[in-house]
Amino acid sequence: MPRSQIEFYYGNVMADAIGPKHGITARQLQALAKRTSPLIAKLNEERRAGNTPYRDLPYSKETPQRVKKVVAELKDKCENFVVLGIGGSALGIIALQTALKPYMHNIYEKKRTGPRFFVFDNVDPSQFASFLHWIGNKLGKTVFNVISRGGQTAETISQFMIIRRLLSRRFGARSLRKHVVVTTCFNHNPLHRIATNAALPCLEIPAGVGGRFSVLTPVGLFSAAMCGIDIDSLLAGARDMDKKVSRKNFYKNPAAINAAINYHFYNRGKKISVMMPYSYALKDLADWYRQLWAESLGKAKNLKGRLVHIGPTPVRALGVTDQHSQVQLYREGPNDKLFTFLQVNSFDKDPKIGAAPRCAPEMAFLAGNNLSTLLNNEKKATEYALLQDRRPCLTVLFDKVDEYTVGQFIYLYEVTTSFAGALFKINPYNQPAVELGKQATFALKGKQGDYKPGYTYQEWAKEICSRTKIDKNFRV
Amino acid sequence: MPRSQIEFYYGNVMADAIGPKHGITARQLQALAKRTSPLIAKLNEERRAGNTPYRDLPYSKETPQRVKKVVAELKDKCENFVVLGIGGSALGIIALQTALKPYMHNIYEKKRTGPRFFVFDNVDPSQFASFLHWIGNKLGKTVFNVISRGGQTAETISQFMIIRRLLSRRFGARSLRKHVVVTTCFNHNPLHRIATNAALPCLEIPAGVGGRFSVLTPVGLFSAAMCGIDIDSLLAGARDMDKKVSRKNFYKNPAAINAAINYHFYNRGKKISVMMPYSYALKDLADWYRQLWAESLGKAKNLKGRLVHIGPTPVRALGVTDQHSQVQLYREGPNDKLFTFLQVNSFDKDPKIGAAPRCAPEMAFLAGNNLSTLLNNEKKATEYALLQDRRPCLTVLFDKVDEYTVGQFIYLYEVTTSFAGALFKINPYNQPAVELGKQATFALKGKQGDYKPGYTYQEWAKEICSRTKIDKNFRV
Repeated sequence: MPRSQIEFYYGNVMADAIGPKHGITARQLQALAKRTSPLIAKLNEERRAGNTPYRDLPYSKETPQRVKKVVAELKDKCENFVVLGIGGSALGIIALQTALKPYMHNIYEKKRTGPRFFVFDNVDPSQFASFLHWIGNKLGKTVFNVISRGGQTAETISQFMIIRRLLSRRFGARSLRKHVVVTTCFNHNPLHRIATNAALPCLEIPAGVGGRFSVLTPVGLFSAAMCGIDIDSLLAGARDMDKKVSRKNFYKNPAAINAAINYHFYNRGKKISVMMPYSYALKDLADWYRQLWAESLGKAKNLKGRLVHIGPTPVRALGVTDQHSQVQLYREGPNDKLFTFLQVNSFDKDPKIGAAPRCAPEMAFLAGNNLSTLLNNEKKATEYALLQDRRPCLTVLFDKVDEYTVGQFIYLYEVTTSFAGALFKINPYNQPAVELGKQATFALKGKQGDYKPGYTYQEWAKEICSRTKIDKNFRV
Repeated sequence: MPRSQIEFYYGNVMADAIGPKHGITARQLQALAKRTSPLIAKLNEERRAGNTPYRDLPYSKETPQRVKKVVAELKDKCENFVVLGIGGSALGIIALQTALKPYMHNIYEKKRTGPRFFVFDNVDPSQFASFLHWIGNKLGKTVFNVISRGGQTAETISQFMIIRRLLSRRFGARSLRKHVVVTTCFNHNPLHRIATNAALPCLEIPAGVGGRFSVLTPVGLFSAAMCGIDIDSLLAGARDMDKKVSRKNFYKNPAAINAAINYHFYNRGKKISVMMPYSYALKDLADWYRQLWAESLGKAKNLKGRLVHIGPTPVRALGVTDQHSQVQLYREGPNDKLFTFLQVNSFDKDPKIGAAPRCAPEMAFLAGNNLSTLLNNEKKATEYALLQDRRPCLTVLFDKVDEYTVGQFIYLYEVTTSFAGALFKINPYNQPAVELGKQATFALKGKQGDYKPGYTYQEWAKEICSRTKIDKNFRV
C-alpha cells in the first residue's frame, strides 16, 4: 500500500494567479532555477562530506534502538512524563505531541494511551509552582527528561536542580536514576557530568547537530517513543523526503523550489513569512518552523565593509481561528507577507454537523456537513480572498497527519532552510547573537567571568542594570 | 491599601538609549505630542457623544449583576465549562483564564477551584472529536457558553448544532436550558432566535461594541465569573486606567503616548510590533492584543485616489522561551521591529533553585535563587542585548498579575488602539476585508445568495474552486 504523502504546491505565487507586480513570472522562475540549481549539487556535496550531519539522522539504526531500550525500561512505571528543555530542546518535541496525540490526551483518564505529557520550556515561577503543586504526590510515577545540548542552559539546569532536590528528599539520592533521563552531548559538559556521576540513563545528541535541527535525534525521538508515537515511521517519512530534496532537477525538488520562492519574495519586500496550518494538530509544527527559520536565517553579514541585516520574520497563524483575528490585516494591510498554508485532506475523526432548528433557516445550509468539509472550504475561501488582493500563497498538502507525513514535513523544512541559507549567503547553522543575552544573564546572577573587555563582571552587571532600569522620566 | 498597578515605560525607545538613527529624539517626541494632543480631546469628545461605547463598559452596574445571577444558577452543577466562540468571542476569554487561573487548572483534580475550562475556537475535526470522545459521559455536569455577536458565525453555529443534537438525544430537547448559555446581540439574529425559542439563558452583547473590544461585556465576564475570577476587580482596574487614558496631558496619558510611539516607528519602517511577556500568565493577553491590533489597524485607505495599505503586523512572543527561538533574528535581522515587553515585579509563588552537585561547579551560581530573579534578570539581559543593536524597547510593568492589573492592561490597549486609529486616520472599529472570505465559505457550502454581481452562487463557488485548486503543473 502506498504510504501517505505531503506535496508542495506553488501555483498561487505565480503571476498568473496574482498578477506580474506581485507574482513570480515564468521568466523569474527560470532565473530562480538557474541560481538555485548549482546549490543543489553543492548541498548534496556538503552532505557527502559530512558537513551537515542532520541530513543523516533518519538513517541511524542505533539511535532508535537505544531510545526504545530506555523506553522499555521506564514505560511501565511512568504515568507522567515531563520534559525540561527550551528552544530546540522543546519545540520539536511539542510539535510531535500536538501532531500525533489526541487533543484531550492529558485530560483523558481511562481513555489515555501513554503517560500524561508536559514540557516546561520557561522559568516562569507561577507556572512551575503550579506544576510542582500538582505533581506532589505523583512523583513516584513520574519520569523527567532533562535536555540540554551544551549541558549548561541556565533555565533547564535551574528546573532540574529543583526537581533533583525534590526527588532526593522524597526517595533518596539514588532514586534519581529511576526518574531522570538526560539527553545531551557526550562531551563532559556539566549536565553530562551530573548524569554520569549519578548513573542516570543518558541519550546522546550528536555533536554536529544544532538544537533546531535536532528533533530527529533522541531529543525528539525519546519523548515521542515514550508517548507511543511510531518513531520508525517518522524516520521513514524523513528518508522518503530525503530522496525528493536531493533531486538535481530544481522543478522536482520541493526544498530547493520552496527556498527559492521564499528568497524571491523576501528580496521583493515581503519580509514576513506566515505559516498557517488548517489543522490544530499541525499548529505547533508552525511554531517549530518559527525557530528554524528565524534562528537560521536571521543573520548580519558583511557586504563590502557594510553590515547588512538579513532575515524573514516567521509568523505562526492558525486556520480557521485566525481568519477572525488576522485576515483583515493580511488582506488590507501592506502586501509584505508570503503565506504558507498547511492543508490536510483526510482526518481520522470527522464529526457531522446537526440540523438547525426551524426558527433559524439561515443556518440550515450547514446541516449534514462534516467539520472537515467546512474547514477545508474555509481554507479555499481565505486563499481566494487573499488572491483577490494579490497576496502570494503556498500550500503544503498532507494526505493525512501521521508519523510518516510529519517526518516528511520536518525534513522538507530543515533542508529548505539549508537552501535558503545558501541563497542568502549566510551560515544557517550558528546563532552568534544569542550569546550576549546569555552572558548578561550570567553576569547579573553573579557568575564570575571575563565577559566584556576592561570590565569586571560586577561592573558589567552594573552597566546592564543601569541601561535597563526604569527611569522615572519616561514612566507613565 | 493602594492597589497593584501597571506602568508604561518608554525610556528605551529614545535616542539617548539607542541612538538618533533609530531612537526618538526629544524634538520628535515634541512633534508627536503636538500631533497627538488634539486627538485626546477628540477621543474624549467622541466618548461623551456615545460613539465609542466600549469606553463605558467598566461602569455598567447591570452587566456584572446579570452575569453573576446566571453564574449562581449554574455554578453548582457545572464541572466542565466549555466556550464555543471564535475571534473576539474567544481570545479575551482565553487571555483572562491564562492570566488568572493556575497553569495546571484543568489537570488538577482535588485542588481545582471552579470547573474545568475549555474554549473551542476552531472547527478542526480531530480536535473537536477528541473533546466529544472525552465529554461523553460527563455531559450531565457540563455547561456550554455559545458566543456569537452576529449570531450566524458558521464555525460557532456548527459546533453548537453538534452539541445541541448530543444534549437533546441524551437528555431531551428541554434539557438544553440547563446546559447552554447564549451570549449574543439581542437583535433577533439566528442564534438569538434559537435561544429565545428554547428559553435558554441569554446574555446581551451591546450592539455598538465590536468583537475585539468586547472582553469587558458578558462575552468575557461570564466565563471569568463561572471560573471564579473576580470580575468586579477586573472592571475596577479598567476604570482606574480610564482616568489615565483620558488625561489631556500627552506625557501623562499612557494610551496616547503608546499609540504615538507605535505610529512613529511604523512610519519609520518598523512595521512589526512584537509583544513579549516575561510571564506565562500574560502569554494570551499578547494573543488578544494580536487581534486587537491587526484587525483594528490593518486597513486600506484612499489617499488622493491611491489605495494605501496600512497596518503594523503584531507578533506574540514569550520570554524567556523565545530567547531560544527568536532573539537571534531580533538582534541580527532587519531593524524592523518595535518590542513591547510585559514585566511582572512580584509572583504569587516563587520556587527556589536547589544546589548543584559538586561535579558541576559551573552551575553553582544558580543555587538559592528564586525563579523570578532568573526570569527578570533574563528580561534585563535580553533588553540590554537588543539595545546594543539599537532596537527600540517598550515595557509595561505589572506590580503583579491580578484582576485589577489585567483590567488596566486591557483598557490601556483598547484605548491605545483608538488613538492609533486616529493617528493613522483609519476606522479602527470595522473589518470590511473579513467579509469576502465568509461569503466565499457560504457559497462553497451551497448557501444561496447574491454574492458577486453577474454570478449565481453556484457559478461563484465554481470560480473559487478553480482559483484554489491544486494545479498539477505547480505541484512537487
